[in-house]
Amino acid sequence: MPITLGGTLVNGKPNYITIVHVGIMDHGTVSLGMSKVHYTNAGIKENGTFSVNIPSKACERETDYCGLVSGKSLDKVALFRTFYGKLKTAPMIEECAVNMECRLTETVDFPNHDVFMGQITATYCDEALLTGGTVDFSKVQPILFVMNDRSYWMLGKKFAMAWNIGNNLKITE
Amino acid sequence: MPITLGGTLVNGKPNYITIVHVGIMDHGTVSLGMSKVHYTNAGIKENGTFSVNIPSKACERETDYCGLVSGKSLDKVALFRTFYGKLKTAPMIEECAVNMECRLTETVDFPNHDVFMGQITATYCDEALLTGGTVDFSKVQPILFVMNDRSYWMLGKKFAMAWNIGNNLKITE
Repeated sequence: MPITLGGTLVNGKPNYITIVHVGIMDHGTVSLGMSKVHYTNAGIKENGTFSVNIPSKACERETDYCGLVSGKSLDKVALFRTFYGKLKTAPMIEECAVNMECRLTETVDFPNHDVFMGQITATYCDEALLTGGTVDFSKVQPILFVMNDRSYWMLGKKFAMAWNIGNNLKITE
Repeated sequence: MPITLGGTLVNGKPNYITIVHVGIMDHGTVSLGMSKVHYTNAGIKENGTFSVNIPSKACERETDYCGLVSGKSLDKVALFRTFYGKLKTAPMIEECAVNMECRLTETVDFPNHDVFMGQITATYCDEALLTGGTVDFSKVQPILFVMNDRSYWMLGKKFAMAWNIGNNLKITE
């Protein structure tokens, strides 16, 4: 799964946390699954907004750090340049490749986790990371995560097009 | 995001569909976000079970094919060897690297999508794909998907350990 940094205001201050329990719900809604022990959850509930930031490999140390230290004990925001968009209360990270600004639409209450679902109101990306007007993930260099051994992986090569390579199979049947 | 094949019984027959709108909710629950036009949704609602299968690159054509053709018009099950686990009603694909057998715990109703959340009751993996007793994704060779240009990508190299590489940053602050 791709590593993200979730952003929210907690007690009026930006806070960022490393989250890999992400999901795509429908074409405009994403989810963050967050243990209830986290400092960030209260901020999302209070403001009804959050951001999902996709860091590049270049931010690997800062990204890991945001998963090591709680916002309760340290102001992690000093690591990054913060900007705001339309929603005003969803802090985003300039150093990240892609930023999605989300309005909370639903919270699913698990025994130990809150799953926050957010409708994406705007997406931001550095123009240098676009090809043909859309995000080019070979330029983004997202950080992928495997929980089994707690490791970070790179995105590999593009090898085929979807809704395409199965066509031959269809013909030969 | 990783490409998966969702499995369910529809009218008593196994059916598989290519799904990339997946999510991790908490440590034991995953989600499938599925357009309401799909044939599979009724089967998940009826049985209260489904499977999430992770195909390897070796299954790229079959995986793509399951996203091209609806179960309404063709019996896609002939492409694979099907097996069942504890739940009896969640068909799984032998050719896939990893299979998760899920019990439906919650459905979130979006305007055009059903998001099915399933608690994983068992996970299956070919022993040849394990290293040290856990799934080795360098052996699995999952298929990753980018929606922008509808392309399939390979997993790249492992480059660092999590909850680790940020430590140095902590020291230098």
